[in-house]
Amino acid sequence: MQDLVKGLLQKNNTKIIFLVLDGVGGLPLNGKTELEAAHKPNLDALARESACGLHMPVGYGITPGSGPGHLGLFGYDPVKWEIGRGILEAMGLGLEVKRTDIAIRCNYATIENGIIKDRRAGRPPTDKMKKVTERLQKEIQEIDGVKFTFGAGMEHRFAVVMRFPNTLTPEAGMINDTDPQSEGKPPLPLLPKSPKAEKVAAVTRKFIDRAARLLEEDNIPQNYLLVRGFSTHPQMPTFTEAYGLRALAIATYPMYRGLARLIGMNAPAFEGDFRDQIDYLKASYNDYDFFFLHFKKTDSYGEDGNFQEKVKRIEEADRSLPRILALNPDVLVITGDHSTPAVMKGHSWHPVPLLIKSPYVLGGVTSGFSERECLKGELGIMKSTPIMPLALANAKRLKKFGA
Amino acid sequence: MQDLVKGLLQKNNTKIIFLVLDGVGGLPLNGKTELEAAHKPNLDALARESACGLHMPVGYGITPGSGPGHLGLFGYDPVKWEIGRGILEAMGLGLEVKRTDIAIRCNYATIENGIIKDRRAGRPPTDKMKKVTERLQKEIQEIDGVKFTFGAGMEHRFAVVMRFPNTLTPEAGMINDTDPQSEGKPPLPLLPKSPKAEKVAAVTRKFIDRAARLLEEDNIPQNYLLVRGFSTHPQMPTFTEAYGLRALAIATYPMYRGLARLIGMNAPAFEGDFRDQIDYLKASYNDYDFFFLHFKKTDSYGEDGNFQEKVKRIEEADRSLPRILALNPDVLVITGDHSTPAVMKGHSWHPVPLLIKSPYVLGGVTSGFSERECLKGELGIMKSTPIMPLALANAKRLKKFGA
Repeated sequence: MQDLVKGLLQKNNTKIIFLVLDGVGGLPLNGKTELEAAHKPNLDALARESACGLHMPVGYGITPGSGPGHLGLFGYDPVKWEIGRGILEAMGLGLEVKRTDIAIRCNYATIENGIIKDRRAGRPPTDKMKKVTERLQKEIQEIDGVKFTFGAGMEHRFAVVMRFPNTLTPEAGMINDTDPQSEGKPPLPLLPKSPKAEKVAAVTRKFIDRAARLLEEDNIPQNYLLVRGFSTHPQMPTFTEAYGLRALAIATYPMYRGLARLIGMNAPAFEGDFRDQIDYLKASYNDYDFFFLHFKKTDSYGEDGNFQEKVKRIEEADRSLPRILALNPDVLVITGDHSTPAVMKGHSWHPVPLLIKSPYVLGGVTSGFSERECLKGELGIMKSTPIMPLALANAKRLKKFGA
Repeated sequence: MQDLVKGLLQKNNTKIIFLVLDGVGGLPLNGKTELEAAHKPNLDALARESACGLHMPVGYGITPGSGPGHLGLFGYDPVKWEIGRGILEAMGLGLEVKRTDIAIRCNYATIENGIIKDRRAGRPPTDKMKKVTERLQKEIQEIDGVKFTFGAGMEHRFAVVMRFPNTLTPEAGMINDTDPQSEGKPPLPLLPKSPKAEKVAAVTRKFIDRAARLLEEDNIPQNYLLVRGFSTHPQMPTFTEAYGLRALAIATYPMYRGLARLIGMNAPAFEGDFRDQIDYLKASYNDYDFFFLHFKKTDSYGEDGNFQEKVKRIEEADRSLPRILALNPDVLVITGDHSTPAVMKGHSWHPVPLLIKSPYVLGGVTSGFSERECLKGELGIMKSTPIMPLALANAKRLKKFGA
């Protein structure tokens, strides 16, 4: 599909905005879903004149993580373009991952006479380990021409990105975890499963040795490290390659910026509330064709099982909508990357309400923006990946297929 | 899917009619689409007792040309069975293309000392060039055992079909265009990109030389020709092979007859209005199992952006419907090959309203035949290719799959 779309692209000056209300889809509590319970006159009015439907990032019954959810929204088949665990961890900690990089997840561990005593090193305080990680970063900047970047995580967790001089193929990441998955065993030896992974394995062994010596000096229980989830950049086509769009991501959480950067969007570090995000959207409006505006709080409260707060966050987004509409984008897509029903306290497999505002829609089919109303919509229940072709078509950026 | 269907075919005496209202799908003007604005009591009554839905020839967001649109309707995946530009041009001019043939698009051009001065030879009058093309046809009937058929087009355009003694594989058409795409350059040399294309390239070179010498004799600015879009027959299974149906196309435009012939339908030259088409349908009713009845004017007025005339053409089709129903076909499918909203003045990606009349439907779901009513229908939003299996099933021409 992406190949077909690529062959039909044509340039124009249209603007496309994707407003992603993270985890917006829900389930009823006392008969009403979060979207149905929310007072959201702007979203409802927009839904009445827009193309509506529901979309599934992966498929019926499959609960997507944030990575697959967003990849689907951006038209990348999330089953084809799987993002490694090391990359996800690194991105979540704000590290950048490029096509030259290997990303890994690390645990501080406690070792005694070569045997792992505690795989999580006593779940040490985050603050303490942050300092330890900073020291590792200071002492280990480069090994054999490979640059090291560290990201401190929660408790015993951290991530490392190793930047090689040249672009790496997927085989370069074919290396096993060293975590034996239970205590009382020695760490597993690092073994490349492909000749192309040998250099990576050799550098990682040196890294583990050097880090372990530094940790020993501190005389703390966190005297060793286990590595997992070796990942290379998935090397999917960039957003510009795939769609000819200059894209800007406006997201406050590092994870989403990382995802956006993976597909070549510009995603500058950003702090502020949703109001600030829209200010930034306005300020950047002339410089890009496509804007990914990420609203996180709907998901956070869904994960917490806080139905009422999720409802309030939907209402907050609704109040901001006129400021986005004032920009008069050619195409405005409003949806989530997955559902996060508060009653389930987590992501779910349920199709996500979707709205596409453009001059070229039927409209007049739904009475508002909700799961049950979107079911009546002109888009039906669809996979997520065709949302991008639809957005491009509505922006008149696709030529006719065949004569 | 076509393989699965083929294995389940069973013969009977049922009749299937596809009434294709070209480009019938639309978008609202002042709140109503063309179908919603039309007074069409017969279509609406039929929709109330039929299976309704919407179909997409290629996919979400993809605007189909007439070729892909009809291929989808007839159950051929239009992405898999792409029809070359040369064939489309030849078919549009009423030329037949067989499995032994290469079809190309040609331009009359002006050349001076081996340099293209005007790729379109001053856009000469159609009438004048028709005579020039007729002369070429008279003088060039055969080269090295390959038969030549010419079709005059608009202004500088014409098409040529080269009929070889044997069936050609797709590789035989792997030859570049000679059009350098800008003036002030020499024509590009004809280079076969496959050994199987060498004979075709050699014959085409001789053709260009002979034609150019003939054109020079006339001492007119149209003294050369550029060739493009070398295409072989896509060689999909014929309608009879795929479905066991003897099929008749009743279409007034050469392009649609050409498409029908490509898949082995009988498509005699036909002139007349829609009333005449239905007369012909009646007269041929005993001789075929399947009838493709093509109604062009809905698309033409959509392309013109003439909302009111498109509405009137829908009303004209509606008035003719009782004469078709009087034949009492076992299955009647009414739909379009794509949408052509008058407000967009062209083909569009929007799903096309679809109605299947048969004794084996739920019915009673829609109040009429329109985009918004068909959304509620029992067929949902579907790809076009399963329309044929549905038609066969409703005609009881498909056995049970598995025990």
